[in-house]
Amino acid sequence: MIRIDRRRLLADMHKLAEFGKVGTGVDRPAFSSADIEARAWLRERMADAGLDPVIDGVGNVFGRSGANGPGVLIGSHSDSVPNGGWLDGALGVVYGTEIARAAAGNGDRRAIDVIAFEDEEGSYLPLLGSRSFCGELAPGEIDGISNTSGASLVSAIADAGFTGRPPARFEDGRYRAYLEAHIEQGPRLEAEGRGIGIVTAIVGIRRFRISFAGRADHAGTTPMDMRSDAGAASIRTASKLIAAFERDAGPATVWNIGKVIFEPGVANVVPGHAEFLFEFRDTEAAVLDDMEKRLFDVVNEADRASPVAARAEKTAEIAPTPMDPALGDVIEAASREVGVDSMRMPSGGGHDAMVLARYVPSAMLFVPSIGGRSHDIEEDTDEDDIVLGCEVMAAAVDRLLG
Amino acid sequence: MIRIDRRRLLADMHKLAEFGKVGTGVDRPAFSSADIEARAWLRERMADAGLDPVIDGVGNVFGRSGANGPGVLIGSHSDSVPNGGWLDGALGVVYGTEIARAAAGNGDRRAIDVIAFEDEEGSYLPLLGSRSFCGELAPGEIDGISNTSGASLVSAIADAGFTGRPPARFEDGRYRAYLEAHIEQGPRLEAEGRGIGIVTAIVGIRRFRISFAGRADHAGTTPMDMRSDAGAASIRTASKLIAAFERDAGPATVWNIGKVIFEPGVANVVPGHAEFLFEFRDTEAAVLDDMEKRLFDVVNEADRASPVAARAEKTAEIAPTPMDPALGDVIEAASREVGVDSMRMPSGGGHDAMVLARYVPSAMLFVPSIGGRSHDIEEDTDEDDIVLGCEVMAAAVDRLLG
Repeated sequence: MIRIDRRRLLADMHKLAEFGKVGTGVDRPAFSSADIEARAWLRERMADAGLDPVIDGVGNVFGRSGANGPGVLIGSHSDSVPNGGWLDGALGVVYGTEIARAAAGNGDRRAIDVIAFEDEEGSYLPLLGSRSFCGELAPGEIDGISNTSGASLVSAIADAGFTGRPPARFEDGRYRAYLEAHIEQGPRLEAEGRGIGIVTAIVGIRRFRISFAGRADHAGTTPMDMRSDAGAASIRTASKLIAAFERDAGPATVWNIGKVIFEPGVANVVPGHAEFLFEFRDTEAAVLDDMEKRLFDVVNEADRASPVAARAEKTAEIAPTPMDPALGDVIEAASREVGVDSMRMPSGGGHDAMVLARYVPSAMLFVPSIGGRSHDIEEDTDEDDIVLGCEVMAAAVDRLLG
Repeated sequence: MIRIDRRRLLADMHKLAEFGKVGTGVDRPAFSSADIEARAWLRERMADAGLDPVIDGVGNVFGRSGANGPGVLIGSHSDSVPNGGWLDGALGVVYGTEIARAAAGNGDRRAIDVIAFEDEEGSYLPLLGSRSFCGELAPGEIDGISNTSGASLVSAIADAGFTGRPPARFEDGRYRAYLEAHIEQGPRLEAEGRGIGIVTAIVGIRRFRISFAGRADHAGTTPMDMRSDAGAASIRTASKLIAAFERDAGPATVWNIGKVIFEPGVANVVPGHAEFLFEFRDTEAAVLDDMEKRLFDVVNEADRASPVAARAEKTAEIAPTPMDPALGDVIEAASREVGVDSMRMPSGGGHDAMVLARYVPSAMLFVPSIGGRSHDIEEDTDEDDIVLGCEVMAAAVDRLLG
């Protein structure tokens, strides 16, 4: 039985948070010096755990056990968004090193591999590390990729000294499960008073740019009935879209209008152009299909109803990824064993488990985010909850590896 | 009787459009070199008309007749917005020089003064020239005023060589009327097939910033019922505001939402802050008061209805300015005499006549804007309409000065 060390776990969490520390959070985007230094430090921790760690050609830190499978792979990512939280993916990585180390300290000879994926957050390429690990990067795919400062991924890898290193690779048949812990990034566990969230599925996302082409006019001299007001058309359409989703979306569907642009964007000119970004998420592809149809109905109706031309353009589509239900049952039993209340819930955010789930039964475990904060230096989780989460994962590993 | 010279009028219009020419328009903001050069040229044209012209301490070109009053003052402004139209206020200035010159050429000894106001468009200070002319600038008021490039008005005046020149000043009792011609800047005359618009009043304007304070949240992980979505609240409120104005505003009220901001402004974050600019215009103060009350009703109701705090802040208020009805009758009679159809209409834009009307009976005459275009290099008016407008104004001057 794996007994994790509360003090050592928390000390590692706090030590990792020193890399790129900004107030109570971290600024550790992929391939920043803080990220590279954190990875060197993580490799040492994996070595302490008796693993044989490497930092591979895309920055993944992979600690492979010398034991034969079938075992488990535990991991997440240690890069952060700019000025992000200290937990986020780092939590799942440190859970892995602590569980492997606790097992090794016990003379346990089961295969518990640990991985810290690179650039899950997409400073250069979202899910870079897990996609590379699973062999999903096409030849040459990373060439020409740059971050928002214009730095190329190829030169970031070269500057880190990783060029030419072979990629760590997923080994077919080696794992009974991929386990990823993460903070919830939302307020539900806290609101429901549960310590563990068991992810049923990672939601699919559809994102649209909805744009309106009218005519810019003087807002004082153009009578209302002679305008072709792209701004007013966009407000009317956004309003109807919200109403359609409130009425017809699934119980777990979420949607958002995150950005609006009016042009030319001054008080006294009727907007000639307007657009807004609309995205929605659900765990069910059928619900996403249905709501996409309703979205087009609303936009096409807006297009017909006024001289302003309205159109919707899909800018992103990510399919939902169900997590393995049997693994969910294992985590639920492990939670009961540890004595912490759990609940099933979707993951509204994307994670490396989306990629891994295509190759191996995968599960995700959430711990509560205080105030639902994430991707922000305010992000935090009660230390007792951090420890309980790791104990639940350790108990789940015990159950899985028998 | 004043007979204007069609060829000379149009030649002057086209010559003035050479100063700051950009394609079919002009870029002649106040105190630009194009503006200063145009003013020197206008002073010569006023001298040709037998006037005694000066360029004063704020850049106004004022051509005073040697004749005793009561006479008329004809004018407008020759500065433009950046990349503006070739007519705009320039039309009203050239009408003045042509009418004074035609009268002088006829041996006419009536007092017809002409003025080209500076910076009506507000590159530095809106209505600078007319406010100075009417003695409305407070001592030191121009100190510390800068344009959007950060250049100060005081140094712009110095660079033009105008520092220390006395301001040209309105002389009480000298004028029976101030007459200002301008392009309509809207589509109504063209749509109704009229050659002359007689302005009943310059609309009053009320402008508001309506802002919403919610909480930024992850748009995937935060359930809909746990959000404090400033963006959605702003869309709902904008929609209700539009509906209230469509239902309750006056027949000539116009309104506009010209700018919207969502923050942080990305697809996957629930907006924590949103705001939009809302303005409305009417010729009746009572209508403006009534609609302002309805605006606050809608915003206060939004504030109560959700956890998002909503508030409206008035950022500008300009009172309506009625034009002199008797002068309107004179222009209507002059239009009939010239044989051109006229109509009464409000001016939806602001003009120097707003200032002059506080001191002297004032009237404005519009000529059609092709396609309603203005403040744009596409702005244009049929040459026949340009000439007819000047003939109507000349006929009105004849009627006024008996």
